[in-house]
Amino acid sequence: MSIPRRVEIVEVGPRDGLQNEAGILSVDVKAEFIEVLAHSGLTRIEAGSFVSPAAAPQMATTRELLQRLGPRSGLRLSVLVPNLRGLSDALAAGATEIAVFAASTESFSKHNINCSIAESLERFSQVIAEAKRHGIRARGYVSCVLGCPYEGRVEPRQAAAVARALHDMGCGEISLGDTIGVGTPLAARALIETVAGDIGLQNLAVHFHDTYGQALANIFACLEAGVSVIDSSVGGLGGCPYAPGASGNVATENVIYMLNGMGVETGVDLGLLLEAGDLVARRLGRAPSSAVARAFASSEANWRTASKTQA
Amino acid sequence: MSIPRRVEIVEVGPRDGLQNEAGILSVDVKAEFIEVLAHSGLTRIEAGSFVSPAAAPQMATTRELLQRLGPRSGLRLSVLVPNLRGLSDALAAGATEIAVFAASTESFSKHNINCSIAESLERFSQVIAEAKRHGIRARGYVSCVLGCPYEGRVEPRQAAAVARALHDMGCGEISLGDTIGVGTPLAARALIETVAGDIGLQNLAVHFHDTYGQALANIFACLEAGVSVIDSSVGGLGGCPYAPGASGNVATENVIYMLNGMGVETGVDLGLLLEAGDLVARRLGRAPSSAVARAFASSEANWRTASKTQA
Repeated sequence: MSIPRRVEIVEVGPRDGLQNEAGILSVDVKAEFIEVLAHSGLTRIEAGSFVSPAAAPQMATTRELLQRLGPRSGLRLSVLVPNLRGLSDALAAGATEIAVFAASTESFSKHNINCSIAESLERFSQVIAEAKRHGIRARGYVSCVLGCPYEGRVEPRQAAAVARALHDMGCGEISLGDTIGVGTPLAARALIETVAGDIGLQNLAVHFHDTYGQALANIFACLEAGVSVIDSSVGGLGGCPYAPGASGNVATENVIYMLNGMGVETGVDLGLLLEAGDLVARRLGRAPSSAVARAFASSEANWRTASKTQA
Repeated sequence: MSIPRRVEIVEVGPRDGLQNEAGILSVDVKAEFIEVLAHSGLTRIEAGSFVSPAAAPQMATTRELLQRLGPRSGLRLSVLVPNLRGLSDALAAGATEIAVFAASTESFSKHNINCSIAESLERFSQVIAEAKRHGIRARGYVSCVLGCPYEGRVEPRQAAAVARALHDMGCGEISLGDTIGVGTPLAARALIETVAGDIGLQNLAVHFHDTYGQALANIFACLEAGVSVIDSSVGGLGGCPYAPGASGNVATENVIYMLNGMGVETGVDLGLLLEAGDLVARRLGRAPSSAVARAFASSEANWRTASKTQA
């Protein structure tokens, strides 16, 4: 096994992260946040979603946000859409990339989006067809790929079947999400091998939550299996270590630190990324929460050490 | 690469962990802590050290602690000794296993133990010879194996040379410590391969700090290289996520969670281990700080999910 020389980071902090934070940020702050993220070298950022404002009040201003940001060369902004109406809103706001969100288990699908997996896939196939008609890219999320809060362990074949369906309907990239963070490295890698056997490694991304501290180990195991697209959230947004039961996305800076140390290119500047994380944490009224942010904040000596010992 | 089917955990919380905590626990509390750790299934616990009480006030009661605990069948308690005087004290207190602590770099050796590497090795060779004369086991630590706060990156050959010297003087096990937590998985594995080539894989342990969130990924990479002895500290003692610059040992429960998920035997019961972590955190006046402890504390649902999705 050898890991990829270059990895693409999909920054999901502005959507998956902020959606799960208590504080609601203004359009101004969100736009500034995305600007500094892009300035750090990130080229793919999930900016928001067009779900019901009642379900995700933090995302209610996604239309204004997209309009404020406008199209940027070299920056792919994507938005989550639940159905044709959401797609229509996204297109009207100028979105050029969308994502749909399916589950690996019937129970999670029912609880999360209130329909069966088959019903969700039927709905998404219409969304994807319409998106393709408008020439915009579509990504498919599969949630609960290694474990479900209602059904426990999830077998690779279950997640793979949903991934295959999303791929076949035209999703150019499938992101496999360990939504509740219960996966461990060998299970994560076995899943990748199964899904890659179906739809090809080049079409896969991984999306880990750090609930049980396993995210980075899982990512390393998936890198060894050849995965080269990683979802992460600056500052581990969406879960706060100061509160019990932190369950956020893996922190982008922890991922970049690991990749830098292994000589894997990402195009992201760690220092600028930490500034972006610091900005959003301050706007949310707290300190940055990732291990890397806390270590670098603690002393200049650490900064120097990290720079010298990093590739 | 295939990972070992069984892994031995060396719990260093009562020594490496508590030594770096602000609070000082009584002999009673420390003894209770070690009892509950042993009850969870841990069979190797580093109980304290015989260094100067001025240098490590938290360790000043190690003699009383060993006497209180007495010999236990199936439980290996070890203590750190810096020199012949420390060994003599340890023997008088009934210690049956000791450890010595050397550095990979001259700068760290000078700052940490106030002598050159060569001087420290000369001193340790006398300690180990005397320990063997008394028929007790000796472990050798090598610190800063992947990076040094004064010298930056450390080459595998540097750490390997110190490991070899400790091995040759009779240390039955060498624990390679990423003292400042700057290592990443490929560097960690390259180090293991270099040192194992010198002294054999079966004589190696790994000791990671989670300063930059890399510890578990590094451990997984080392397991893939065949390492089967892992140092860890319940609750990530020695570094607190509520304070800036947390830099504790990797949390034992995060390690056990990963190993359980991969079907690797450790003999440790995760629930009982979490109780031990909870006990010591309460005695230190705070909540348990590891990801696993926080996730399990947050909801009963998580408990059930974890049990169901764990091997």
